[in-house]
Amino acid sequence: MFTFHQLSEQFQQQFIRRHFPQQPSDLYDSAEYILSFGGKRIRPVMCLMGNELFGEIEQDCFSVAIAIELFHNFSLIHDDIMDKAPLRRGLQTVHTKYNEPTALLAGDVMLVMAYEYLNNISEKNLHKVIRLFNRTAMQVCEGQQLDMNFEKLPNVRFTDYVKMIELKTSVLLAASLQLGAKLGGAGEGNQQKLYEFGKNIGMAFQVQDDYLDAFGDTKKFGKKIGGDILANKKTFLRIHVAEVASEQQLQYLDELQHKNDEEKINGTLQVYKDCKAREWSAELKDKFYQQAIKHLDDIAVVSVRKKPLYDVAEQLMSREF
Amino acid sequence: MFTFHQLSEQFQQQFIRRHFPQQPSDLYDSAEYILSFGGKRIRPVMCLMGNELFGEIEQDCFSVAIAIELFHNFSLIHDDIMDKAPLRRGLQTVHTKYNEPTALLAGDVMLVMAYEYLNNISEKNLHKVIRLFNRTAMQVCEGQQLDMNFEKLPNVRFTDYVKMIELKTSVLLAASLQLGAKLGGAGEGNQQKLYEFGKNIGMAFQVQDDYLDAFGDTKKFGKKIGGDILANKKTFLRIHVAEVASEQQLQYLDELQHKNDEEKINGTLQVYKDCKAREWSAELKDKFYQQAIKHLDDIAVVSVRKKPLYDVAEQLMSREF
Repeated sequence: MFTFHQLSEQFQQQFIRRHFPQQPSDLYDSAEYILSFGGKRIRPVMCLMGNELFGEIEQDCFSVAIAIELFHNFSLIHDDIMDKAPLRRGLQTVHTKYNEPTALLAGDVMLVMAYEYLNNISEKNLHKVIRLFNRTAMQVCEGQQLDMNFEKLPNVRFTDYVKMIELKTSVLLAASLQLGAKLGGAGEGNQQKLYEFGKNIGMAFQVQDDYLDAFGDTKKFGKKIGGDILANKKTFLRIHVAEVASEQQLQYLDELQHKNDEEKINGTLQVYKDCKAREWSAELKDKFYQQAIKHLDDIAVVSVRKKPLYDVAEQLMSREF
Repeated sequence: MFTFHQLSEQFQQQFIRRHFPQQPSDLYDSAEYILSFGGKRIRPVMCLMGNELFGEIEQDCFSVAIAIELFHNFSLIHDDIMDKAPLRRGLQTVHTKYNEPTALLAGDVMLVMAYEYLNNISEKNLHKVIRLFNRTAMQVCEGQQLDMNFEKLPNVRFTDYVKMIELKTSVLLAASLQLGAKLGGAGEGNQQKLYEFGKNIGMAFQVQDDYLDAFGDTKKFGKKIGGDILANKKTFLRIHVAEVASEQQLQYLDELQHKNDEEKINGTLQVYKDCKAREWSAELKDKFYQQAIKHLDDIAVVSVRKKPLYDVAEQLMSREF
């Protein structure tokens, strides 16, 4: 059994190379550009871990893992265009460095290339793998549409917000694990449990993300606290506070819109604290985490095989960055 | 053997229905919207004809034909965003009717849905079909990138322009035929010849398109003559004239930029005529057409099976609309 870190290195060995032709250079260089950002490659490594839970990893699983990472980058490129985001990980987004039309096409070829990698796997798994991949791809697009719709609404219900995050973020993590499990020869029941594990870990991860943006330790977090607050982004915290805050608190949050950045962040954080959003989000994260663990417990394989997944779940939850 | 028209009706019977889920409605309604425009469905019908050249059409071929038409519409949605086109076939483009982010996502789900239809075919053909489909999809994106690049250049060489049109337009027609041929059980040699037939027909079709925009009969053409001229669009005619016109003629074309629409169209057409662009483009079209026919001649099947393809080639060439 390999740890997350070991599998991550194995993945990078196959992934770090040029995936696209040389010409037309603007199109393909812009596609390569985003891949050069690096990252933790969580999703493809989850695919490898999903496989190893049930059997030895073969080359097909690396192909699917690469397809997953390309799909993820396709969605980042297009999301950044839609969100008019100038930066990602402190670097220029593709449409900022190149231009919107080229970035749009770079996303398109990235998606096609994902299918090209999927198409490398053996016939016997091809239908099933593509089916789950497609369903997940549609869901991720649906999540992005809902996210954009929600940004325009004054209020979003907590349950609707959960559903959106599930589609936009969690299903890809869940499907990555399940795709690996499929290739590893897992039965349908075990595949479903692993999918639910991934979905809940994904939710917990997002809650943690929102928490860190508000309450993280600046030194460890690596970026400025309060970015979501300044951007008026809907987050788990914001959605919750909108539901529990008093009229007076809501009015105060409105007034903070006209204040400078520091006042806006500090004032909003004070309301979050007064509404016990900190404790609430810690509980919510733990709820998702416990559900994830329960599903992992239920998977019918010897526990020694599950250890790397328990470990990675714990690491993801305790991260402070 | 069925005619183009008969196969078109068979295709429409399977194609005219909702392809996407109901929710989120803005996303999926915008995807359905462009499909409701109709059109001649040339590419999917070519796929069916490619199959029938070699054997009876089975359901798999309809799945691939639908995938091709969805892919074509994906490229239209994204191209219209990139080109900032307000109208298509006299109707609002998807991003005009909805908005750019939703149109971008609608294109994305259209592409994923194309792969979902591909994934319906039997295992034995899946790898090969997806491989050709992917290669073609990449080429179409490359063609769009080159097209955008060329629009920014003062001059484009004829050979470069031909290559761009080949990628942007012809390879999809060619691949549609070849995909059908694959499913019909054709050998590699025959598949290649059919591909070349389609590629050359596609080129001839585009030359005809450019010709009609300049010299078509307004009544038959159905839209105003000179649209390409007003938009300063690079066309076969324009590229040719730029290569053969005198300094004086080129200067005159430049001066026409500051005239009103009517003067600009009439003046440009006069230069086209003086440069014998009309005769030149008729010859160019015929050259592509003859090459197409030669490849069709060379395909090793009894000539009675080829008749519908000869017929459709002739019809496409003699169209005045």
